Amino acid sequence: MLQFGRATSVAAWLFVAAGCTTTSAPIALEEMGSFHVGGRDVTISGRAVKEIVFSPGGVPAKVDPNGVYAVEQMYVQYFIPADRRGKVPLLLWHGGGLTGVSYETTPDGREGWLNWFLKKGWSVYNSDAVERGRSGWAMYPDIFPGEPVFLTKANPFERFRIGEGPGSWERKAVLPGNQFPMDAYDQFVKQAVPRWTTTDKPTIAAYTALVDKVCPCVIVVHSQAGLFGARVAEARPDKVKALVMVEPANGGSDGAKLRDVPVLAVYGDYIERDARWPKMRSIGYRYFDTIRQAGGSVDVVNLPQVGIRGNSHMVMMDRNSDQVAALIQKWLEEKGLYQ
Amino acid sequence: MLQFGRATSVAAWLFVAAGCTTTSAPIALEEMGSFHVGGRDVTISGRAVKEIVFSPGGVPAKVDPNGVYAVEQMYVQYFIPADRRGKVPLLLWHGGGLTGVSYETTPDGREGWLNWFLKKGWSVYNSDAVERGRSGWAMYPDIFPGEPVFLTKANPFERFRIGEGPGSWERKAVLPGNQFPMDAYDQFVKQAVPRWTTTDKPTIAAYTALVDKVCPCVIVVHSQAGLFGARVAEARPDKVKALVMVEPANGGSDGAKLRDVPVLAVYGDYIERDARWPKMRSIGYRYFDTIRQAGGSVDVVNLPQVGIRGNSHMVMMDRNSDQVAALIQKWLEEKGLYQ
Repeated sequence: MLQFGRATSVAAWLFVAAGCTTTSAPIALEEMGSFHVGGRDVTISGRAVKEIVFSPGGVPAKVDPNGVYAVEQMYVQYFIPADRRGKVPLLLWHGGGLTGVSYETTPDGREGWLNWFLKKGWSVYNSDAVERGRSGWAMYPDIFPGEPVFLTKANPFERFRIGEGPGSWERKAVLPGNQFPMDAYDQFVKQAVPRWTTTDKPTIAAYTALVDKVCPCVIVVHSQAGLFGARVAEARPDKVKALVMVEPANGGSDGAKLRDVPVLAVYGDYIERDARWPKMRSIGYRYFDTIRQAGGSVDVVNLPQVGIRGNSHMVMMDRNSDQVAALIQKWLEEKGLYQ
Repeated sequence: MLQFGRATSVAAWLFVAAGCTTTSAPIALEEMGSFHVGGRDVTISGRAVKEIVFSPGGVPAKVDPNGVYAVEQMYVQYFIPADRRGKVPLLLWHGGGLTGVSYETTPDGREGWLNWFLKKGWSVYNSDAVERGRSGWAMYPDIFPGEPVFLTKANPFERFRIGEGPGSWERKAVLPGNQFPMDAYDQFVKQAVPRWTTTDKPTIAAYTALVDKVCPCVIVVHSQAGLFGARVAEARPDKVKALVMVEPANGGSDGAKLRDVPVLAVYGDYIERDARWPKMRSIGYRYFDTIRQAGGSVDVVNLPQVGIRGNSHMVMMDRNSDQVAALIQKWLEEKGLYQ
């Protein structure tokens, strides 16, 4: 992937060590690692014992499905930069049907927001929500109510304001000026994972456990995680120093709790011409009003209104993702969260 | 997580930049990122369209389950050190029912093999096998044949040579002298994910695609991935410069193909007293014989025979995981793969 020789690397490091980090420089980490947080034990009984051959030609093992299962835990990977400039860690919470991969390398191979904020000097905690990705998932309907939802390749194209809405996939009709890297659309859909619509409660519990473990912090949420971020910040307003809501699909339930938590909401382009997003944004707006009525502060940025055009729902993957990251960074600096 | 000030960090970096890296030093990365590799498109038809509310109180969306799905892709995260000393990248392939998290922070919070080899100067590619973790999973039985297997908390304890075999979980009877960090056992089982036993073929296809993308390389496999590593190395013997098999549950099908691929096999303790592992190891031994008969080289290390005692099946998580990593490192150096 890279062709730098060792001499070049050492020179680069002397440069970095002198405090000259830029976002194109290498990444200097004090620490990196991962953990699972939250979850509970559930007992299953009354099932037949199975005999399973785990590897072809291998030795059969008796597997007793009765017993205690660890479920609803959440996976978190963290990166602590050597030169920390964010005053608190930044938590990245992805949207529905996806995982923390949303914030890693973009589908077209550019550095994503994880690297961007890390290189700016933020400690970054990137998680997979309960039942997504490395968090694992549990038996259904025994433990998770209902069935998982799988998305066709057409679905995000038509629903995430990349294409021109229902029916546009067949015509590959991209919204004019769209910033989503369509050449890498196939790479994007490989990131999708099945999801339930019945797991909000354990998901909020696990995110709350994460906040209790690693905060004070800033939380950046996307789409489905709008609800999770708002609810968890309402439950832990002392620990959430700022909440950045990127295209939130929903808000919280008691905005007054956020009167001391500054909120930034960012929306992309094409909302007015979409069938669902005007109402989804209005749900957000109503929530923000309840925060403001309690004396809180919410800044709403509709990107086209500040001259940033063409953003789909997947803002952190769009070709101008760095530009939007810089907008969030500037807001965090204004809130005194960066040194 | 850390308390070093900025001045300390800069000093640490000058130290690192001078080439003084040790495994307790920070991590200097030239690059880090992720991608999905492999997979195929599958068309599903004849299903009813559903209306789904993805977020409570949100706007219902029509979801058409008919159409094309991206399935059987594999997630890979990579870390390229600034000071590369491994001559080729190191690929880490985890065992069954787990994900790449196996190689990250150990359940008891120590640095795992990912960090260990990275700090030694290896470029490391850590993946989640097809249908595990961030690779996502597909509808069953429509796309994946059969049902997923879920493991109780008791199962790995009794089957991975941590406890004294079947029935030992209830008594919490740990094998005497066991190196597995039992105080963190609950943390370990949170890493488990459902798995199929019917997906070897697409898994091998995705691993082969990974090898075609990033190798020449060294591949380190664990348990179920013994089969994957052996099969993929047989298919790409020119690209696999060494194969390290840690407690392989199985071998390949044509060992003669590995006559130019040096192999190291590492087995832990307690095998003789286990009900299944003597036969599983003998499957490995028979495979190694086919490699040797073709003129190839296989080094087998039964850890107790070199004075390293108490290892469970989860060698990379055991309290002496660094010691085993060092043994693998020494072997790789002897094979001329390190500078």
